[in-house]
Amino acid sequence: MALIVQKYGGTSVGDTDRILNVAKRIKGFVDNGDKVVVVVSARSGVTNELIARAKKINAFPEEREMDMLLAVGEQETIALTAMALHSLGVKAVSRTGAQAGIFTDMDYTRAHLVKITGGDIPERLAEGNVVIVAGFQGVNDAGNVTTLGRGGSDLSAIALAAILKADVCQIYTDVDGIYTADPRVVKKARKIPEMCYEELLEMASLGSKVMQARSVEFAQKYGVVFEVRSSFNNESGTIVKEEVASLEDVVISGVAVDKNQTKVTVRNIPDRPGACAEIFSVLGEAGIGVDMIVQNTSQAGKARLTFTVSKDDAPKAEKLLKDECAKLGGAEVCLTGDIAKVSVVGTGMRTHSGVAGKFFRALADSDINVDLITTSEIKISVGIDLEKADLAANVLHSAFGLDS
Amino acid sequence: MALIVQKYGGTSVGDTDRILNVAKRIKGFVDNGDKVVVVVSARSGVTNELIARAKKINAFPEEREMDMLLAVGEQETIALTAMALHSLGVKAVSRTGAQAGIFTDMDYTRAHLVKITGGDIPERLAEGNVVIVAGFQGVNDAGNVTTLGRGGSDLSAIALAAILKADVCQIYTDVDGIYTADPRVVKKARKIPEMCYEELLEMASLGSKVMQARSVEFAQKYGVVFEVRSSFNNESGTIVKEEVASLEDVVISGVAVDKNQTKVTVRNIPDRPGACAEIFSVLGEAGIGVDMIVQNTSQAGKARLTFTVSKDDAPKAEKLLKDECAKLGGAEVCLTGDIAKVSVVGTGMRTHSGVAGKFFRALADSDINVDLITTSEIKISVGIDLEKADLAANVLHSAFGLDS
Repeated sequence: MALIVQKYGGTSVGDTDRILNVAKRIKGFVDNGDKVVVVVSARSGVTNELIARAKKINAFPEEREMDMLLAVGEQETIALTAMALHSLGVKAVSRTGAQAGIFTDMDYTRAHLVKITGGDIPERLAEGNVVIVAGFQGVNDAGNVTTLGRGGSDLSAIALAAILKADVCQIYTDVDGIYTADPRVVKKARKIPEMCYEELLEMASLGSKVMQARSVEFAQKYGVVFEVRSSFNNESGTIVKEEVASLEDVVISGVAVDKNQTKVTVRNIPDRPGACAEIFSVLGEAGIGVDMIVQNTSQAGKARLTFTVSKDDAPKAEKLLKDECAKLGGAEVCLTGDIAKVSVVGTGMRTHSGVAGKFFRALADSDINVDLITTSEIKISVGIDLEKADLAANVLHSAFGLDS
Repeated sequence: MALIVQKYGGTSVGDTDRILNVAKRIKGFVDNGDKVVVVVSARSGVTNELIARAKKINAFPEEREMDMLLAVGEQETIALTAMALHSLGVKAVSRTGAQAGIFTDMDYTRAHLVKITGGDIPERLAEGNVVIVAGFQGVNDAGNVTTLGRGGSDLSAIALAAILKADVCQIYTDVDGIYTADPRVVKKARKIPEMCYEELLEMASLGSKVMQARSVEFAQKYGVVFEVRSSFNNESGTIVKEEVASLEDVVISGVAVDKNQTKVTVRNIPDRPGACAEIFSVLGEAGIGVDMIVQNTSQAGKARLTFTVSKDDAPKAEKLLKDECAKLGGAEVCLTGDIAKVSVVGTGMRTHSGVAGKFFRALADSDINVDLITTSEIKISVGIDLEKADLAANVLHSAFGLDS
């Protein structure tokens, strides 16, 4: 008898058969006497279809309308999941983000949680219902639907687990857990049975597709222990918590690949204090994160700035930067193509030397040219050609002894 | 400068190109200085897709969850339509049924309007916005989304036109107006330039696909003059209002075909007072309308009842009737197949004789067998074989001089 929050991602609820399978899994817990809150994503593909439809109509859709549009995906899934549970004789009721008391700020398409009340979830659970909540979405003070951005459904689940004081939080996805690398890219990737928030945070922020950083940060802040596991089998997954004893012995825990980066170059910037700050401020105010910044002075009195933004933000960034360049007299912006960021992460890097040497040697041996470099205490990241991303991940995985 | 409420049906917003066309049409009115409130349906096919997906999961989906599911269709369209207007430089904002203050009772999937406030529509219009409202949906006291049933978007538009005191209410659809018959069935059907509510009500209640009865009744009650017209051209359509001078001269105004009927037979009913009442009460309480009732006594002490229900209601009706038959000891229910109801309507029938003779002669001449008959002051309806429906509509259209 536990209170369990479960989150099922888009592939887990990808079609009607899968939704029925999810319902059967939930029924197993209900039959066991557990109380279950389920957070679901949109069926896989639906969100992308909606975005594509919007972009056909308007290349720069207004963000409030985008959220009105995207919220549709999860609303469909909660209703279908409730119907599936009913078909198995399980009491269930669906709740939108707003109905589940997920309150956010006004920052459409990437809203931040302001307050989580859970709405009437405790009452509905007490009546014997499974409560199905639409992930990824909330509501703001103006009564408008908002979405939480990428990985928002994980955040919904972890936030609900925190507020409801759930005993267990399970993040069901299409992989068996957190791997030393994306198993779709690196065949020899292995499942990590336990890891700490910090480790996963580095993996997440580097583009590992399993969990977004903000969800992990939220879990860390509120001490929500969660398990990432597959909805397609019954194997245990990866448990993520504050401290993991065995971590000390591992130099590199994993390799992360992010293929969703666009390289941006701003040329002919007046080489005066504050010019770069203005450029980054404009992006920061629009909520666009920048990464892998390289600055160099090309001609007398002119600077050149290169950095990456996420591919999704690229059109917006270009528009903002063009306006900003006009103000900076003579500066020019150009998007010089999509690139991949490949990284190795490991808390062991703090105490082991030689990691950088091994890293660059492995890439060089495979003729992989490095375009941008950025490092921290526990990671090394490089920006490379998109086509070389998978190769790089594999050679690094081998070089650091992560192959099984 | 007028306040115009426009409603665009599913085919008018069927894909992104059509949504952009609708936006261009709206822009024309905005450029003319009009204030425009737009009510949209789900893209054609979407509602049926959602229903099919639900039925794959659960043959009898709970109605609250059904509405949670179906509301998705219109929510998608309002966002896309707002985006399309933005792409043309027109200020626009979307509103769900709840946000537009469309309050209903708790009767899911066929909710009734309880109160319409319009929400903040007047303020948004005053700011120069086009306001795009999700048709077909509302919200009940429990804060749950409800849907208004078939033709609900028309009702949303007419109700908003009434509360906002709109100067004009335009119902855009995929036909040019109200025809003497469905032009997809009867090639020689002609557009009727003006007709009165009562006339259209008979057409609507008989299954003409253009408008549902409740929308017309609502318009009549609140004196909302509306025009049914095409979103694919600029021709004027059919204006519907209280009185139309020329109507007196016309014997038959139109032929209606309803192919959405299932014939139900209940056999071996104890021939005692109240037995039939109990059967119809059970259906009435579930909100299932019955039509074309025929009763006859087959064997000693046993009655047989035949009637039609809408095809959508048939599975539910069968379930309810089976339970009821069990109570009525020995009665049996069987659904004896889908049939078509073909009708002629005309206020002129009140003053002209010979209509019935001409009606049945026309059917007999074409070898069309009549299964059920029902009549009123201004209409004659017959239940016939589904395959013969189009033929019947055509021969009746010719017989009553409606061909152009």
